[in-house]
Amino acid sequence: MFQNFADTNQRHLTPARIADLRSRFEALQIDGLIVSRADEFQGEYVPACAERLNWLTGFSGSAGSAVILKSTAAIFIDGRYTLQVRDQVDLDLMTPLQVPENFPHAWVTRNIPKGGKLGFDPWLLTIREASRFEAACNEAGAELVALDSNPIDAIWDDQPPPLAKPVVQQPLQFAGMSSADKLRDIAEGLSQRGSKACVLTQTDAVAWLFNLRGCDIPHTPAVLAFAVVHDDGSADLFLDPARVEEGARETLGRASVRLVAPKQMTETLQALGSAGENVELDFEWVAEALRRALTLSGATVSHHESPCTLPRAAKNHAELEGARAAHLRDAVPMARFLRWLDTNAPAGQLDEIQAAQKLEALRTETGELLDLSFDTISGAGPHAAIPHYRVSETSNRPIENDHIYLVDSGAQYVDGTTDITRTIIAGTPTTEMKDRFTRVLKGMINLSRARFPAGTTGGHLDPLARLPLWEAGLDFDHGTGHGVGSYLSVHEGPQRFSKADRTVLQPGMIMSNEPGYYKAGDYGIRIENLLIVREAEPVKGGDRPMHWFETLTFTPIDRNLVEPAIMTDAELDWLNDYHARVLKKVAPRLENAEDQAWLQAACAPLTR
Amino acid sequence: MFQNFADTNQRHLTPARIADLRSRFEALQIDGLIVSRADEFQGEYVPACAERLNWLTGFSGSAGSAVILKSTAAIFIDGRYTLQVRDQVDLDLMTPLQVPENFPHAWVTRNIPKGGKLGFDPWLLTIREASRFEAACNEAGAELVALDSNPIDAIWDDQPPPLAKPVVQQPLQFAGMSSADKLRDIAEGLSQRGSKACVLTQTDAVAWLFNLRGCDIPHTPAVLAFAVVHDDGSADLFLDPARVEEGARETLGRASVRLVAPKQMTETLQALGSAGENVELDFEWVAEALRRALTLSGATVSHHESPCTLPRAAKNHAELEGARAAHLRDAVPMARFLRWLDTNAPAGQLDEIQAAQKLEALRTETGELLDLSFDTISGAGPHAAIPHYRVSETSNRPIENDHIYLVDSGAQYVDGTTDITRTIIAGTPTTEMKDRFTRVLKGMINLSRARFPAGTTGGHLDPLARLPLWEAGLDFDHGTGHGVGSYLSVHEGPQRFSKADRTVLQPGMIMSNEPGYYKAGDYGIRIENLLIVREAEPVKGGDRPMHWFETLTFTPIDRNLVEPAIMTDAELDWLNDYHARVLKKVAPRLENAEDQAWLQAACAPLTR
Repeated sequence: MFQNFADTNQRHLTPARIADLRSRFEALQIDGLIVSRADEFQGEYVPACAERLNWLTGFSGSAGSAVILKSTAAIFIDGRYTLQVRDQVDLDLMTPLQVPENFPHAWVTRNIPKGGKLGFDPWLLTIREASRFEAACNEAGAELVALDSNPIDAIWDDQPPPLAKPVVQQPLQFAGMSSADKLRDIAEGLSQRGSKACVLTQTDAVAWLFNLRGCDIPHTPAVLAFAVVHDDGSADLFLDPARVEEGARETLGRASVRLVAPKQMTETLQALGSAGENVELDFEWVAEALRRALTLSGATVSHHESPCTLPRAAKNHAELEGARAAHLRDAVPMARFLRWLDTNAPAGQLDEIQAAQKLEALRTETGELLDLSFDTISGAGPHAAIPHYRVSETSNRPIENDHIYLVDSGAQYVDGTTDITRTIIAGTPTTEMKDRFTRVLKGMINLSRARFPAGTTGGHLDPLARLPLWEAGLDFDHGTGHGVGSYLSVHEGPQRFSKADRTVLQPGMIMSNEPGYYKAGDYGIRIENLLIVREAEPVKGGDRPMHWFETLTFTPIDRNLVEPAIMTDAELDWLNDYHARVLKKVAPRLENAEDQAWLQAACAPLTR
Repeated sequence: MFQNFADTNQRHLTPARIADLRSRFEALQIDGLIVSRADEFQGEYVPACAERLNWLTGFSGSAGSAVILKSTAAIFIDGRYTLQVRDQVDLDLMTPLQVPENFPHAWVTRNIPKGGKLGFDPWLLTIREASRFEAACNEAGAELVALDSNPIDAIWDDQPPPLAKPVVQQPLQFAGMSSADKLRDIAEGLSQRGSKACVLTQTDAVAWLFNLRGCDIPHTPAVLAFAVVHDDGSADLFLDPARVEEGARETLGRASVRLVAPKQMTETLQALGSAGENVELDFEWVAEALRRALTLSGATVSHHESPCTLPRAAKNHAELEGARAAHLRDAVPMARFLRWLDTNAPAGQLDEIQAAQKLEALRTETGELLDLSFDTISGAGPHAAIPHYRVSETSNRPIENDHIYLVDSGAQYVDGTTDITRTIIAGTPTTEMKDRFTRVLKGMINLSRARFPAGTTGGHLDPLARLPLWEAGLDFDHGTGHGVGSYLSVHEGPQRFSKADRTVLQPGMIMSNEPGYYKAGDYGIRIENLLIVREAEPVKGGDRPMHWFETLTFTPIDRNLVEPAIMTDAELDWLNDYHARVLKKVAPRLENAEDQAWLQAACAPLTR
């Protein structure tokens, strides 16, 4: 199994750990320490050895940071984790504060004593983050101090060792573009900007650029390695050659990629520095330690968005064909799972863990599952109201009749990454549940149906998914969707649907469309399909280039929860047409006649 | 009349004027000059004496700038003026370039010679603009040089003198809040931020803060005066006391406002400087000259959004009541005008100027018209496709049968500023015209009907007005709406509906809602109502504070151009309900039975 349901929270151990850490402040000549949930690659997912924030505080969310001062401490989380943090951390030891209302920098300015020294591990803050903390310390008359080694590693006795699992080639058939071609494009950009090289640190960018996939992080086949790309189209990839499969080594060699042991990275950076070269870094993503190393050795560093970001986000033909195939493959276990739930849930004997295990088992039966794309969110009743709920043996609840059940899950296949949410009910929904579900569905449909001019951002379109909720005085407190990688991270930037977004949508981008409604302590709803941004055929009389969304996901939406009376004709047509397409595409792939019969009923047209 | 239709373009004179200007570069020790369409207050509207850009280049648009180098020159305009600038300027003398694709700063970097000196009048660039030009010059190895006097004034022989007309009090009954109370709120903010004073330069902010109205600028009753507000709630208003009516002088005196001759402003600034005080300036709006004066005399200046901006934008109860009254009053001449058009246009004898004059005459008959709020846009046929068309004696066209006619106009009344656009047709529209008109109308209705949570910005809502056009591969190249003042500027920030907007909408803000469609050379459509942002009553089951829009404008929308077949039930209900409200509110105010009968027919319900 690619997931487990163990209770890992060690809050009872955190007082001693924090006390131990503080006892070392004097020797380190610091008055506080920044502890971020990050490794040196600054990605969303980190290996177990980098879960320092969790080990120290008990907080297990995928984003957050803490500042531990001598006698006070605060932990900073976003709106997704407001409830979870209060369950996981010792509130006597630290105050949970929510960003963006409370930024850690502002808290530092208010709380650090004048003349105080705030320590940080320069491998674990980005250049931008470090500069914000530096400004915050300056404002308070204090000092930000880069530490030579991480003080938590010194006290974390059973810290797992870093993994160094084999790295495999992503075949050209699925990658769609050779690493040599990608490097050539990046080198052209560097030359045009007068830069000699760029340092890449995002693990999914490295995996994408070199057509490699790893398995050091659960659920994300990224490659934990730094790389330097030079303006001649060659590259240094800091990865132990012994870990890389032979075929990949040969392909990389032909693409002028030098596999270099990670320890030798310092020499490469110093060579750039001693030649006084211009080196580009993406200040939003690159560790402060790398900026310091380059600057110290004499290089001129400048900020430039990682040259991998946009080409990786706008998928090529092979990647899109792979995504389509992966989603059709994934539609089979999803349909079988929903039928299994429909058949067995009414007896009231299923629980959240069983459901998550069943879904994984059905995906494994495809014979092509390489991993899940994240831990399945399997939430019954009030647990469905927690957008990022993780079921554990302690929290596990039965899936009861007349209660909502929400399942948000995804798979990693060699040709694509899936991410889908369905909300269903065994038994009878309340009028309110049907109303809320239908509003969420209307929002999901509004966005799916949108046609929009080239130049439109995800931020412009985000409200479309909220309008039907707004009409009822409701909303949801997360973005409407995120980018998705190609057998890579299930959360991939820069594009997203969110109020704050300003990224122009480009053809080939894959995005989730997942509005929701959450009634705390009662129930929650989310419906999620993945979309591809596509160029539209010109409409007769139209006078500008337009885009539309192709839907990738083919899984029925629970008709029991739909209230056709509050849908427009266009919305109902979309739903019926969607179900007709699901039936047509997925039925032939189901081997079992009962599964087929279930799908036919689940996809039957709805009328008013 | 408050408008004229004279042809004022003097393009034939511009070669000599530009040559004259260039001949003075050597004596001024400059290699170029920035000429912006601005006065020292940096508002959208400027008095005739400040129309330097128009005088020098022939371009009469309300926004733009030129950079004149020794042998090359460029003029920078936005999308509204792409066509107009090519008609008005001598293309052999200067290249028109459109922002934001081409910023003047970037052009300066590419075109100014290394070591060159670019002159500018520090009263005519904001602090932000000056700093952008400074960076652009630095990048090119050139220098930005502040000039002591404006070189255009030196060669503009018949430059009109500045006006200095009487300034009157805006009665408390309409202002809704005394100047003393407004000053107290601003002083509290200054104290909280540790600032001693702020300098105010926006002419509508000064008018708003001191409850004064002037008439030095056509159509905008702003007060052309600087002011300094101190943290004790007192203020210096740099305005010749002799120009201010006696009642206003007394009220100001009671509010601790010192009327100071403009010439003495330097002393006030120097006093702040010599005491080393912190002074706030809004860098987006304040002239660079003021920053220099303060800094030179020893003050510490910091950027802060003008403390008048938000309180002025979010209208109080009296201002909103005034706006409602002004719009109902204005609905009478609008209805009479539309009936007059309906009756007389089919004979084919009317033209654009006659229509604009008739509308103004009918507004004058209210007995309360103080000014128009801008020159009426009266465009027949292809002229309707020019969003900011100004009819002149040369351009004047007949209003032909079967052709679209677009009229965008507004009035200044003591209790409010109106702004309304209607598009009508005498005769029979084409199928395409009806389709386009109905899509624009659907967008206008979508936005009018929106309910949205507190915290939503105009940028989030802007796409609602575009969706029906997007479905047909169409869009329009201007924002969907702007803020409107209270017997002040018809364009008032910070709120607006536009793709780039990030201002949170607050109850009491007045905004225009004016989507359009423009088919160059053929016809154009725009439909504009004004809206008030209102707090919504909680909906049963709703869980967050919501806002909605109250419509202020009550004028029929041409039923001949509506295609009900492509409207949803909700949209058609909105339109019929709107027309029922127009009839109910406006019919009792029409004295003439024929006008009433016309209104009844114009407001009859539409069905499919």
